[in-house]
Parts: sequence; C-alpha cells; structure tokens
Amino acid sequence: MNKTPVFFISDSTGITAKTLGSSVLSQFDEVDFDPVVLPYIDSVKKATQVMLRIKDAREITGIRPIIFDTVVNPDIHAILRQADALHFDILNQYLKPLEQELGHQSSFTVGKAHGGTDNDEYKDRINAVHFAMENDDGGKTRQYDQADIILVGVSRCGKTPTSLYLALQFGIFAANYPITEDDFDDLENFGIPKALKHFKKKIVGLTIEPERLSSIRNERKSGSRYASLRQCEYEVNEAESMYRQMGIDCITTTDVSIEEIAAKVLASAGIERT
Amino acid sequence: MNKTPVFFISDSTGITAKTLGSSVLSQFDEVDFDPVVLPYIDSVKKATQVMLRIKDAREITGIRPIIFDTVVNPDIHAILRQADALHFDILNQYLKPLEQELGHQSSFTVGKAHGGTDNDEYKDRINAVHFAMENDDGGKTRQYDQADIILVGVSRCGKTPTSLYLALQFGIFAANYPITEDDFDDLENFGIPKALKHFKKKIVGLTIEPERLSSIRNERKSGSRYASLRQCEYEVNEAESMYRQMGIDCITTTDVSIEEIAAKVLASAGIERT
Repeated sequence: MNKTPVFFISDSTGITAKTLGSSVLSQFDEVDFDPVVLPYIDSVKKATQVMLRIKDAREITGIRPIIFDTVVNPDIHAILRQADALHFDILNQYLKPLEQELGHQSSFTVGKAHGGTDNDEYKDRINAVHFAMENDDGGKTRQYDQADIILVGVSRCGKTPTSLYLALQFGIFAANYPITEDDFDDLENFGIPKALKHFKKKIVGLTIEPERLSSIRNERKSGSRYASLRQCEYEVNEAESMYRQMGIDCITTTDVSIEEIAAKVLASAGIERT
Repeated sequence: MNKTPVFFISDSTGITAKTLGSSVLSQFDEVDFDPVVLPYIDSVKKATQVMLRIKDAREITGIRPIIFDTVVNPDIHAILRQADALHFDILNQYLKPLEQELGHQSSFTVGKAHGGTDNDEYKDRINAVHFAMENDDGGKTRQYDQADIILVGVSRCGKTPTSLYLALQFGIFAANYPITEDDFDDLENFGIPKALKHFKKKIVGLTIEPERLSSIRNERKSGSRYASLRQCEYEVNEAESMYRQMGIDCITTTDVSIEEIAAKVLASAGIERT
C-alpha cells in the first residue's frame, strides 16, 4: 500500500504549515503519510516546479496528495490552487474572520510568521543559548543566581536538550546540574546538593525509566558499568528519593518529546509563555 | 488603547496553537495583541479556571478575546466553546475533511501532536545536540567527517544557536567553525581554512551586518576591540571574500530569526525536511 503524499508548502520557513499539518495528521494512526516540507516557494517558477512534483506524487502513488499551504503571495497561491489535491489554505481560513473582528486589513506580508526577527528577542535567545552551554552539566560556570530554571537529573536523562530548547525557543536561562553519586552522599548531611542549596525555588527535577536510560547510555558507552541497568536503576531511585526529600517537582522524560518536557518544565516552574 | 487578549489553549504543549496563531496574527501590523499560552488544559476544573481568565480579560480590556484552541477532549472543548470570544477550533476544522478524504476516523488522541516521542527520533535529536556542542566553535573535537553541515562564520554571527536549532528540531549533525584572523592568513596559501579543506560540500557560510555584529559583541565584551565596528567590518569583509573565493553559499543572519536562518541553511545544503 502506498503512502499518502503530503506537501507542507510555504513562501517562508514552512514551520507553521509543518507544525499544524503534522499535528492534524498525527490524529490518523492507521494512515501512512509521506510528508515533505517545501519552504521558500516564493516565485512562479518554484511554484511550477512544485506542481510537477505534486503531479508526479499523485501518479506514482495513485493517491490524491494533501497540501498544507501558508503561501501569502496571491499569484503563487493561485498556481498551487490548481493542484489535484486536498488543499488546506491555512492563512486565508483565519484572515477573513480576523479582519472582520479586528476591523483591520491583514498586511499579507511574507515571512512575518514568527516574530523572531525582533532584535531584542534574538539577543535574548542567543544569550540564553550561551548561558545554557556555559552552565551545562554542572560545568565550571555555575551562574545559578542568573538562572530562571535549574534542571537537575542523572546523566543522560534529557537535561541538556531541554535546557537548550528552553533557551532557543523562549530565551529562558536554564542551567542544569547532573546528580552524581557524590550528591547522594551529600544528601545525608544537607538534604540537597550543596551547590543547589540557595536555589531551591528554581529547581525542576527530571527523571526517566531505568531501562530507557540504560538504552540511551549504551548508545554512548556500550557495555559500561555506567550504562548497565543496575547502575541506572540505582541512580534513578536515589534521584527520585532526593526529589521527594527536597519536595520539588519531578518530570519524566521517558517517551516524551523534548517539546513536551520543556512545556512541562515551564508549567512546573510557573512560567507562562506569551 | 488596550491590547486584544489572545489565548492559545491546548490539552498538550500548546505548540501548534501558538505557532499557527502567532503566524496568523503577525499579519495584523496595526493591532496590539496580549497573548498567552495555556498548555495542559486537560481537566474540566482547569477549563473552568481558563473561562474565568477569559472573562476577566474581556472585562478589563473591553475587547472580545481571540482563542486559538487545539483541545481534543470533547468535554473540555464544550466548556471553552462557551467563551464570549472569536474562537478558532483548529483541529476540528481539518479533521472532518481529512476523515472524508482518507476514509478513516481520526483517533482524537491528546498529545500526539508532534510525533516527537518516537524513541529513535528522540535519540537522533539528543545525539545531534551533543554533536553540536562537542563540535561548537571549532573546539577540540572536529568530527567533520560525521557532520551533515558545517557552519562557518565570524564569532557571534549566529553559528551556535543555528547549529543547536538544527540539532534539536531536525536531528541534523551541524558542526561549526569560527573564522578568525589566522584563517585570513591561511587563505592566501590554501584558499580555504586548512581544517575545512576536505569538507567543502558540507559548508554553509553565515554573514551579518557589521553594525549588528558590533552591537551583539558589545553585549558580551563592551568597549573591546573585538566589539568595535572597525574590527567587525574587517572580519565580515574578509569572511565574505573568503566565501566568494571558495564559491560557497552565504546566508545573512541580520534581522532574521533563528528558525529562518536554519531553514535557509537546510535549503542551501539541499536537505529536505519530512
């Protein structure tokens, strides 16, 4: 059985078409899709090439393709409308009712989709990325006073990707602190790793199923004690009991996407996105 | 004049509602919006709290709020429908025509929005993040043979956030190489920095307006020679002439969001997203 061809088409990055389209299509478990993102379709020539590709896909698979389209330019849009496909014209669906509600015409400008070109926001995000990298894995820099959030967890439970995602997407200063066996000893004296003592309010704990952790660690150090299920079980149990003792929130990263971990961390820290 | 209240409401991360909604609203230059993302609205209790918040916003501003809603659960959805707002029910708009086209019922499952819980994909992204960090800024590791893309550019032109974004979003192995004055000397002998000699096909050059670069560098090292406009002009000119000499693509990061830089880098490298 052939897969249903799906085209996410944009005259900008394609992020909106791809995000919305994937979200909607993920509701159809039983259907196999063959998706592709076609960004920067910003000329009649490129649109014509896309039309050939859509036609080919239809002929090869025998299945009518699905198009999610955020193209703003009316001339390019008019070409794509002619495709023999189930065509979702994303922007236009929303612009008409919004124009009516707001009493303003939409500016119909290409590439304004994400507002990320705001210079201050860009600087915030870059600064946050560098902060996350400098404060990764309990490294030499520990600017925990400047952190919005401090992620704690055992090695390879997802701290680094989550802190970088928070930085890149939201400009959030996220440090991360790896829990090691030394901390378990510390705990008996302090109830919290020494380095974190004054920052309890910013801490969010991550955890993970030991089997999954072992599988991830084996990718890096196959067959090591570090990657053994026994060691992973030990560390995860100790970490979770530490979170309970500290009374901090704990989020599992098992079978959860980086986007979801990040969204849950924000919710746990009481930080609202705008 | 009050800002128009906007609510992005989801029973999952809220990414789809936020991405689509922001994209659509960015087409209205003349309107000021006051947006907030409300993720994990997954109980009747939470939905009822949201309703109060929407009502408050309407009363305080005197403006009817706008709601972008990707809530899947019908009971929760039914509550939100009662809000006095311009309400976009995102998923349902697409599910009906897709059910008809595909001949399948949608599974209507919460939180399946992003497919990021696929374990292999998750591992790919984590591995790519660690690769990007280890191969950042021409550091001690230079696994350029394993790289999908090598970003080159002067210090603080946007290489690090772009390579991390490529890793996090797409699992792409992106190394980055900072061009320094040493390379300009090298060039006279080799036409390309020595370390990059065998990897020309993977290279994408980044550039930036000297004024903008100087402003970014001043954030970090205020008043330094490194941050001076003169030094920035010199480095950018040399880098751009190096790109021309090498015959490689060059993408500007001035006034461009990280998402857009990443999308352009992929297009330049001929890598299609799926």
